[in-house]
Formats: sequence, C-alpha cells, structure tokens
Amino acid sequence: MTIELSHDPRTGAAVDGPPYTSPDGVDVHVKAADAAFPAVSTAHPAERRRWLDTVADALDDAVDELVALADSETALGEVRLRGELTRAAVNMRYYAAAGEAGDWLRPIVQTLPGVNLSRANLPLGPVAVFGASNFPFQFGVLGHDTCSALAAGCPVVAKAHPAHPRLSVRLTEIAVDALTRAGAPSGTLGLVVGFDAGTALVDHPAITAVAFTGSLRGGQAIVEQARRRSRPIPVYAEMGTVNPVVVTPAGVARMAAIAEEFAASFTLGVGQYCTKPGLLLAPRGSGVTEAVAASVRDRQGAWLLTDGIATAYRSGTAAMADGAELLAEGPSAVGGYGVGPVALRVDPDRLQPGSSWLEECFGPVALVAECDDLDEVLDVVRRMQPSLTGAVYGGGADDPDVARVVAVLAGQVGRVVVDGAPTGVACVDAMHHGGPWPSTSEPGTTSVGARALERFTRPVAFQNVPDAALPPALQQANPWNLRRDG
Amino acid sequence: MTIELSHDPRTGAAVDGPPYTSPDGVDVHVKAADAAFPAVSTAHPAERRRWLDTVADALDDAVDELVALADSETALGEVRLRGELTRAAVNMRYYAAAGEAGDWLRPIVQTLPGVNLSRANLPLGPVAVFGASNFPFQFGVLGHDTCSALAAGCPVVAKAHPAHPRLSVRLTEIAVDALTRAGAPSGTLGLVVGFDAGTALVDHPAITAVAFTGSLRGGQAIVEQARRRSRPIPVYAEMGTVNPVVVTPAGVARMAAIAEEFAASFTLGVGQYCTKPGLLLAPRGSGVTEAVAASVRDRQGAWLLTDGIATAYRSGTAAMADGAELLAEGPSAVGGYGVGPVALRVDPDRLQPGSSWLEECFGPVALVAECDDLDEVLDVVRRMQPSLTGAVYGGGADDPDVARVVAVLAGQVGRVVVDGAPTGVACVDAMHHGGPWPSTSEPGTTSVGARALERFTRPVAFQNVPDAALPPALQQANPWNLRRDG
Repeated sequence: MTIELSHDPRTGAAVDGPPYTSPDGVDVHVKAADAAFPAVSTAHPAERRRWLDTVADALDDAVDELVALADSETALGEVRLRGELTRAAVNMRYYAAAGEAGDWLRPIVQTLPGVNLSRANLPLGPVAVFGASNFPFQFGVLGHDTCSALAAGCPVVAKAHPAHPRLSVRLTEIAVDALTRAGAPSGTLGLVVGFDAGTALVDHPAITAVAFTGSLRGGQAIVEQARRRSRPIPVYAEMGTVNPVVVTPAGVARMAAIAEEFAASFTLGVGQYCTKPGLLLAPRGSGVTEAVAASVRDRQGAWLLTDGIATAYRSGTAAMADGAELLAEGPSAVGGYGVGPVALRVDPDRLQPGSSWLEECFGPVALVAECDDLDEVLDVVRRMQPSLTGAVYGGGADDPDVARVVAVLAGQVGRVVVDGAPTGVACVDAMHHGGPWPSTSEPGTTSVGARALERFTRPVAFQNVPDAALPPALQQANPWNLRRDG
Repeated sequence: MTIELSHDPRTGAAVDGPPYTSPDGVDVHVKAADAAFPAVSTAHPAERRRWLDTVADALDDAVDELVALADSETALGEVRLRGELTRAAVNMRYYAAAGEAGDWLRPIVQTLPGVNLSRANLPLGPVAVFGASNFPFQFGVLGHDTCSALAAGCPVVAKAHPAHPRLSVRLTEIAVDALTRAGAPSGTLGLVVGFDAGTALVDHPAITAVAFTGSLRGGQAIVEQARRRSRPIPVYAEMGTVNPVVVTPAGVARMAAIAEEFAASFTLGVGQYCTKPGLLLAPRGSGVTEAVAASVRDRQGAWLLTDGIATAYRSGTAAMADGAELLAEGPSAVGGYGVGPVALRVDPDRLQPGSSWLEECFGPVALVAECDDLDEVLDVVRRMQPSLTGAVYGGGADDPDVARVVAVLAGQVGRVVVDGAPTGVACVDAMHHGGPWPSTSEPGTTSVGARALERFTRPVAFQNVPDAALPPALQQANPWNLRRDG
C-alpha cells in the first residue's frame, strides 16, 4: 500500500489519504529544513513573529473548511473542533510573541577579571514533530510543538498523524503558503506521511530534536530509536498517565457536584485527553459511587478516533472490569468506533504497582476507590506512577487536608489543581504541562507555555568573543532589547 | 575480592582501599537519603547554604591531609592538587550562595481570569553522583555535581572513584562530619564503593537522577541502564570530546605563542582534561608543525591516573600514529603509569566521520592539521562530533575570519573561546560546561555554574492552590525574597 487511508470514525469507512513519503522524500524535506536553518535561526525574532502571525491569520480564514475536514476524520464534533482551532490560532500568536519577547534565550553577560563571558540559548536545528491524534489542531502538525520550535528559530518537519492524514496535509499546505507569503525561507515547515517515513525522520542525521505527543508505547519507541542514532538527540515525548483526583473528608459535602465535574472531565473529548482523570479517591461512605454512577449513567457515548483506540478501549475496560465493580455505563454511540462511558469501583488495596488499573486506558473510563482515611488515599497516590496532573477537592482554603494532598501530589505530578478538574491546559507563561516518566521523557520540560521554546535550544557560552562575532542576544548594544542577567 | 585497591600511579603499587559496599549497604544509603529528602528539600535555602559553607570550611581545614592523600592516589602533584582543593571549597560556597539566591527555582506567579497559576522548580529527590578520575576535588565526590544537587535540596549518594577510593572515603567522612555539626539531617550525603554498588545505585527505585563525569563508554552505559529502569530517570553524563582549536590566517603572526599555549593546554594535568584541545587546525605554511614540535619536544611527561588510562593512552597514540606523522614526543615519566606527550600531524582530508582521530584519546596527545584555507578548516570542524569547547586564535577584534569560525563553532560546541585555550572552566553564573552528544547526554544542561542546580529539579504548576499549601517560593508574601516572574 502506498497511500495512507483516512477513516471516518462514525462508520469506519475509509477514503484515500495522502501518499506515503518515500525515503528520498523524507531526505528532501529534512535537507530543505537544514538548508533553511541558518536563515530561520538568525532571523530577527520580530520577523519570525510575523511569519507565525500570518499562519495564525490563515487558520482563522480557513475555519469552516478545516473544521469540516477535521470532523470527517476525528468525529470530535463541530463545536469542539471550532473552539480548538480558534485556540490553536491564539496559541500560535502566543508562541510568536514569546519568541519575540526572548526570555527563552536566557541571555547573561558577565565581565570578570580578564574575561568576558556571556551565554545564550541558541536554536538546535531542524526538529521532527510527531503530533497527537486527540487534538488535531492544538497538538497536531501546527500544535504547541511546531509553534514553539518555529518561534525558537528551528525549522520543523512534521509527521502526518494516521488519525487525520488529510487534515495534516491541508494544515501544512495552508501554513506553508502563509509562511511563503510572509517571506519565511522555503523549508521552514515540511510534512512527511507514513510510519516508515516517521522512522526515517527520527534517524535522519540533520534532525536535532524530536517532539512527540501520544501513547507511552509510541513515545518509548522513539526515545529508544533516538538513543540508538550514531549521534543521539533529545526526544521530548509527552505520553500517558492516570491523573488522580482526591476528595478530602471536608470536600464530601459537595460530592454530587464533584462527581458531576469528574464525569464531565473524564468523558471530555470521549476521554481522549492526556490529562483525563482516571482515578477518583474519596472517603468511604461519602456516597461517591452513587454520585459518580448517577453522573455517568446518562452520558451519551461517542466515537473514538481510530479503530486501534476503540479496540484498546474495549479490551482495556474489559480487563479493568475483572476484579472491579461496574458502577455505571452510558449508552454507546452506534457504528464505527462508537463506545460508551464506563465507571468502575475498585478496592484501594488492589491498586498496587504494576496493576493495569494504574495504567492509562485512553477513552471515557474511570475508576473510583473508597478509602478509609486520607492516609490510605495518600498511600495509593504514592504507589501510582507519576502523572501529568493531579487534583484535590477540599473544604475550602482552611481545609488542612488540602495542603497534605497538595504536598504529596507535588512530588508525583507536573500540575496540581485544587477544586477543579485536571483537564484544560491554558497556554500561558506559568503553565507546566509535563511530569516525570511515564508522563514525559524529559521531566524538566513543558510542551505548553513559553518555556516550551527552551526545549529546542541549547546554551552556548562565549569567552572573550569580540562583540561583532557574538549572537545579537549577547551584543553590547542589546539590539533585541532583551532582559539579560549578569 | 571484597576490597577496592588504591594504586600509586608513580609505581603501580597497590594498598588496601575501602571495602566494597554490599547490595544491602547500597539500600541503606539510598533509604537514608530518601528519608532525609523531606527535611533537606524543605529546609530554608539559607540553612542549606550554612551546611555547605560548613563543609567548605572543613575542606580548608584539612588541606594538607587531603592533598597528600590525593597525590598518593593520583600523582597529580601537590601544587595542582592544592590549587584544585582551594577552588573546590570556593565552588562549594558558590553553589551554597546560588542555592540561597534561588534563581534555580525559576518561580512565576500569574493571576488570570478565574485562575491563579504559579510554578516553581522543586527538588527531585535523592541523586546518585559518579565523580570523575581526573579532578578528585572539583569533580569528585564533593565536586560540582554533589554541590549543586545539595544546594538544590537533593540528598546525594556518591560512588567512590576507583582512581582515588581512599580520598573518596576521607572526603565523605569530612563532609558528613561537617554536615552533622551544621545540623543537616543524617542521610544528606552517603558514599558507596565498587562497580556493583554503582550499578545497584542507578537501579535503586528511590534514586531520582544520576550525575556522571567520565568516559563516553561509562556515560553511555549509565544512560542505557537508567532508561531500562521500570521508572526511567534523567542522567546528566558529561563525557569526552576532541575540542578543536583553529588558527585563522591573521592569527599566524603569533604562531609560536599559540603553539606554546596549545601545548601547555593539551598537556595540562597530563592531558586528562575533558576540555583538552585534541586538534589544532592552522593554515598550511604557517609553521604550525615546527612550532608545536618545538613546544612539545621538551615537555616532561608524567603519570596518568590509572593503569587503564595508561594502557588506553599507549594503544590510542599508537593507533593515531598509523597514517599520521610524529611531530614530537616529550620524555616519558619513568615507572608506574608514566607516559610522555605526543604531537602528531595528519592530513585534514583524512579527518572523516568515524575516524579514531576524531575521538577523544585521554592523555597528553594532540593532532595538528594544516589546511589550505579557512573553508577547509570549517569543513573539518563541521565533520567532527560536537565538543564541550572550541577555540579560535585570530588577528584581533577586526579579523573577519574570527566571526566565521565562532559561528561554526557555536553550532558544534558548548563554549567558544577566542584567543585562549579551552582548558580552565570558571565556576561562574555565565559558564556553560556542556554540549551536544557525545559531550553530554543532556545538551540543555551544564555541570558547572548556577544553572547546574536546575538539573536536579523539575517544574510543578499550582492551579488555584491556597496560599498556605503552596511551596514558600510561590507564597504571596514571598518569604524567601525571590526574584519572581509573572
């Protein structure tokens, strides 16, 4: 087969998608990115901002077409996709502005006895981006990874996602056209199609970093592959986690509302969020099981993104049900990759390291565990693998249990939420979207927010280098008006 | 054998060193570190500063004893070791102060509509430190890695280096005694001895990061081992590189002085520097070969650190000589691991990827290549693996070739030096001691300077968390008086 098929999740029917990229085609794209790198990386940040703003405008101009195309390949629905595309364009302008603001360069200039020493982050080079299935706009070929790499001066070669190959191609066409109109070098953005092309991309000698959003298995495979290169390169893989939610004894008073928010959160986007809360830990006798059951029972199912995700969801929920109690099952969507939401109850002492209950199951399923006291809750949290996020619902600012849970969660997750659901990741400066393995492969980095740019740079120190030979970020006149240390 | 032997490099004779640490012993040390972590990580940074300052004072009080012990195991000589120990104590106070200053926390507080979002770096947990053979004080069990981990609130379990096991033990004793006197929790610092103990350390579930300084092979092995853990953790390995030095046509006027500086640099510490310049690229007809030969011919050899390093040096220089021209050989030191310096000339077109000439050979050997023009020089630099540092000697601030070389080196190395040797790494805020693979396993990080602390942290975001439940770095009253963004 030489064509990537494009599937309609509502029916499972396939139409022809784009052709697979040949090994030579991958080489052409990466060489074009490599050839563009000097111009892209040395462009004035305000110039790169203009390029990205032009792409964002082009996305806004193509909303109807893109939403329809995305819906035909993802079945995520027009409302969700329209909102997501709007935010994707906002994100792109955010990264463009962050690129111009230049904090990601982290410049410092020091004059020591007999030595001038300065340092700044410099762009790495061409970056390979493997977007996610579940957010075709915000984490797709023009998502956070691509935006932050481009804003940091790195050309991008993205891989089309098999869950939305035609959308991947169309997004790239629109972006390349906008970049060209804005005067960006040819090769600033490229796209390859197909599994083998993705493998060739990671192995290409001119690729200097890889960003990935997706499953643990996929992320692990790319981490291993990059490590086996003759020159290993950084891989920023954002993978899967369970994301626990805790209710303190004082929080129980609001159990019905909490259960409703929990059910809404774990079924959002048909449970296909990397921040989906997969486990609710609440006091025994709090009515949590009845409340969650009531909130889930009438929630309409929908279609998962791919046949593979649907199959894994069905076998995953079956495996999770073995030894657990079914609390409620919502009506399944009919046809294609349709499924319904599922809530299960499990004894907390069965939640042990290595248990499949403590591994992510992508889709609208969640566990509830009733615990005797907060100590038992915290023991379960400590036994879990680290997560991207964790949340606690308490009895207000005076609830001392909230501080206890926050302290334990802070040792386990990348973002701690109080009195709210973990889904929903604002693209702002203070955001951290990351966490220890298996959340990500690089716990020091974030894939959302201004700090995301730093992933595609590395520091270089300049010792007694004449001013004219320094990068602009370090020149005495500070031509980019950066906030510098030193 | 249950004892680590301690060798005198001047004779090769061995005396009994410390006993190997058993698997149970490793577990005891790591569990003690893990038990200390809550207190170490939440101590006021000024308190941790006091702990480290007390250790630095104790080092200053034990100079005579420590220098004598170090010299008996390393043969690096009293002058060098006295200077290094003095600097190691200065470094420790530097990291202590950097820890208190708190820039490594990178705190940011944002108030958005309906959401309070803040973020800070939090200490990771117990850190395993594998120090280097070549700097028993500055990169040993109390070197940059240990200092920066402790300053960032992470307990350390170090591994004794087989090149100086008795010194490793004594340094740890002095430091643990000082830490105890200063009131640091028991378990803040521990030491294990032996290869198997090092392996068990990397595998221990409570270890959260590894810092390593040493050979490429050793670093790669630990990177692979950490990746195979059931929970992979970050490994910060600083390994080996060639560190090219370029002379521009205008620089040729000073060739005799440059050759002298180059020879002094590549033979410093018997060539056992990770920043040792291994390759000098100069214009053909510049007299570079005669100048380097004259500078090397009378340089007295000395003793390498270990039998393994001496054996690798002898076979490495023999392999490098095959196809190269011997320019000069200095007199070898007699006995034990004694060697002499070697300078070789090689045709630049033979310097191709994969060639052993472009891989580090630890010890006082360097290559000289004469190039037809600067384009040929830059082609060689681009064909090389990345390095920790690179240097260029030019004809002053107006020499346009300097800027060309700086631009190419900046794409290849972690620190670019103009008109100076690459050896010598100041422990200051603007330093970067790192670089792309094979220089290090994590090109975004440095093992020297205040930024080194960030390696042992990860960011955590706090969303709508009540003030009292926030870490001090993010509390409204800013009790640690940090410079915060947002």
